Amino acid sequence: MMDKAVKIGFLGCGNVGSGVWRLLEGFGRDISHRTGLSFEVKHVLVRDMTKPREIDFPQGVLTDRVEDVIDDPEITIVLEFLGGEEPAHQWMLHALQRGKTVVTANKVAFALYWHELQKAAKETGAGLYYEAAVCGAIPIIHSLDESLQANRISRIYGIVNGTTNYILTRMSKDGSAYEDVLAEAQRLGLAEPDPASDVEGLDAAYKLSILASLAFHGRVPFDNVFVEGITRVQSEDIRCGQELGYTLKLLAIAKRDGLRVETRVHPTFIKNEHPLANISGAFNAVFLYGHACGEMMFMGRGAGDMPTASAIVSDLVRAASTNHHLYPTFENAECPAIALQKNTDWHCPFYVRMLAYDKPGVLSKIAQTFADHGVSIAAMQQKGDKLNGRVTLVFITHSASEENMQLAICKIGEEIATVESIIRVEQD
Amino acid sequence: MMDKAVKIGFLGCGNVGSGVWRLLEGFGRDISHRTGLSFEVKHVLVRDMTKPREIDFPQGVLTDRVEDVIDDPEITIVLEFLGGEEPAHQWMLHALQRGKTVVTANKVAFALYWHELQKAAKETGAGLYYEAAVCGAIPIIHSLDESLQANRISRIYGIVNGTTNYILTRMSKDGSAYEDVLAEAQRLGLAEPDPASDVEGLDAAYKLSILASLAFHGRVPFDNVFVEGITRVQSEDIRCGQELGYTLKLLAIAKRDGLRVETRVHPTFIKNEHPLANISGAFNAVFLYGHACGEMMFMGRGAGDMPTASAIVSDLVRAASTNHHLYPTFENAECPAIALQKNTDWHCPFYVRMLAYDKPGVLSKIAQTFADHGVSIAAMQQKGDKLNGRVTLVFITHSASEENMQLAICKIGEEIATVESIIRVEQD
Repeated sequence: MMDKAVKIGFLGCGNVGSGVWRLLEGFGRDISHRTGLSFEVKHVLVRDMTKPREIDFPQGVLTDRVEDVIDDPEITIVLEFLGGEEPAHQWMLHALQRGKTVVTANKVAFALYWHELQKAAKETGAGLYYEAAVCGAIPIIHSLDESLQANRISRIYGIVNGTTNYILTRMSKDGSAYEDVLAEAQRLGLAEPDPASDVEGLDAAYKLSILASLAFHGRVPFDNVFVEGITRVQSEDIRCGQELGYTLKLLAIAKRDGLRVETRVHPTFIKNEHPLANISGAFNAVFLYGHACGEMMFMGRGAGDMPTASAIVSDLVRAASTNHHLYPTFENAECPAIALQKNTDWHCPFYVRMLAYDKPGVLSKIAQTFADHGVSIAAMQQKGDKLNGRVTLVFITHSASEENMQLAICKIGEEIATVESIIRVEQD
Repeated sequence: MMDKAVKIGFLGCGNVGSGVWRLLEGFGRDISHRTGLSFEVKHVLVRDMTKPREIDFPQGVLTDRVEDVIDDPEITIVLEFLGGEEPAHQWMLHALQRGKTVVTANKVAFALYWHELQKAAKETGAGLYYEAAVCGAIPIIHSLDESLQANRISRIYGIVNGTTNYILTRMSKDGSAYEDVLAEAQRLGLAEPDPASDVEGLDAAYKLSILASLAFHGRVPFDNVFVEGITRVQSEDIRCGQELGYTLKLLAIAKRDGLRVETRVHPTFIKNEHPLANISGAFNAVFLYGHACGEMMFMGRGAGDMPTASAIVSDLVRAASTNHHLYPTFENAECPAIALQKNTDWHCPFYVRMLAYDKPGVLSKIAQTFADHGVSIAAMQQKGDKLNGRVTLVFITHSASEENMQLAICKIGEEIATVESIIRVEQD
């Protein structure tokens, strides 16, 4: 084992950057003892050098000139903590073009510009590492890349957004309303002041685009992911689902069947016994199925400064340990091996709650409308309490086509029943 | 990416070896397309060349001479599927001494001779890979080695034996007796005809020795692991635990606090909400805590030919992709950084079930005996039904020393109560 000193630079130094600094400061000696690698942070790019900071950076480390990081010939590895699309994308590209290895926690810029960034990295032989971009501390990227190579992965189910999992867990446990739990999560700092990216499912969709691309060895662009967030989830549906043995999660789902790929993020009922059902609060988890390994699940903290720093520093150690960086291969980069059209007509069971007029023939009309569209009913419950002359009906269907289901719902006229909620179900 | 043909040899070809053969046969082209590596199995060592086999090996592949595998200069990677201590240990050593990389699924030989095998590997620069030795397909070894390097890991809780997890899951769900479920598991091929290694916890202890050594960066020999199996588990305790909100698992537990390390395998009550509580049937899972990553869990199939083959082939690809094999560093190989004495006086809460005479003063005597030994009671239940003038008392204690607990139990004389069961509890 040779001792090797590695000079690195930070682009940005918010929570995650500070976490990495503290982790290297507090645990760098242990890493050095075990690996022979020592890291020196030469420059940290910040917007405002006069801003008071918790970390007491040595003289000369802070800079507000990006060139001090991406053009410094001594710096061989650049850690990107800016987040968002630009200028992160341009600066990572710039660093890679100069042969500097990039370690990033930026799911947005990475998901959108992966192809371009990887091309630049390959051209100069630089490394491109992004474990921290998906599910924080969980080594899911590394496992897909280097532990599951012998598998044809056909399904991924991920709880990849901690904010929405916290909200749904609280709604499930207390029966609280969405708006109340969101407001509380914002007070606790578990949700952003503008929560749109989390609660509308976009954050999960970026991560799913990365996971599905790696798992299926074909690029699945962000735009191909169907997205529905949790903003319309009602506690009543969570309760009705619980009575039927289901837990509600915002799942990121990717399936591959031959050349057909479907990727979707939406609230999903899963069985209470499923290992994902016990993943509570702000935790993340990824469940997958490979033809050799069978079912597998990874769980851990998907956000937070230190968990994310754990993944960043692991990438840093791996990047610095090799002279020969590896890049995933995408079949559809060369040939259209997997279909890239956006698939929105998948098949799954559905949970449907409606308020139906309590008069003869209504149930048979509903059942007939479902049947006319090829939707077959697996279970039905009528709730006791009448509301304005209407009763609550809850259906679980057998697996049906999304398209047919939507058509059936349109056909159930308002004179018969109003459909309050449709929630997709995974039975696996 | 350069194309590289790699000649490999098998030592043994039972279920796992056959699984690896089939995986390479069926998925080798995909692996080759993605990694540039192609594998040719040159020789397969078997005991009896005349035995009928499901695989139609090409002429000249099967051999009953070990030299054809470990002395063939063309073979660069040896896959060991013999299991057990000898001759697996000697043959792996021999191969490593000749500079051949070894990939093994053999927890016993590896746990017992790790130090010697690693020394031989380092001397010739050969690689030593053992992902499949612990928890089958789950990439826990690789994750500890290459994804959690920035963590001081302080706790590991593993469900690392599928046979016992299947038995305990069935006992929990049906209330069946241990003997009945074991017999059924044997009929289904989920338990060996001689189940001792599984049900007495030895298999789990070998795996824990490997996991704790890697996680704590100090060798924890197999002999240092305290072991208690599931042979004395009674359904009644599982039921009483369930009423109190606990699930019973055979846990492999490793904790490090400074220089103090404790490793133990025993039936353990964990809270129903714990992610490990939902790991059912023959699945394995490892839950751990690192100072940066926080809580993390890996779940998957811990046995079976294809899941184990998934881990073997992943090791094979990694071994063939590098010229520079890495070895874990053990602090206590050079200096006694962690204490190596067998710690048996840990602290934890306890579940105690006893049959007590239903007369005045008995409860106070029991409570006093506990108190005299520093054991404080967190919860107590008296069961309604009397049995021969005695009532069932179930206690959950606060965290107490194992030693004091055992002393207290001895002091509760038979004239007061008979202690039916003591089960350790983890509250994390």
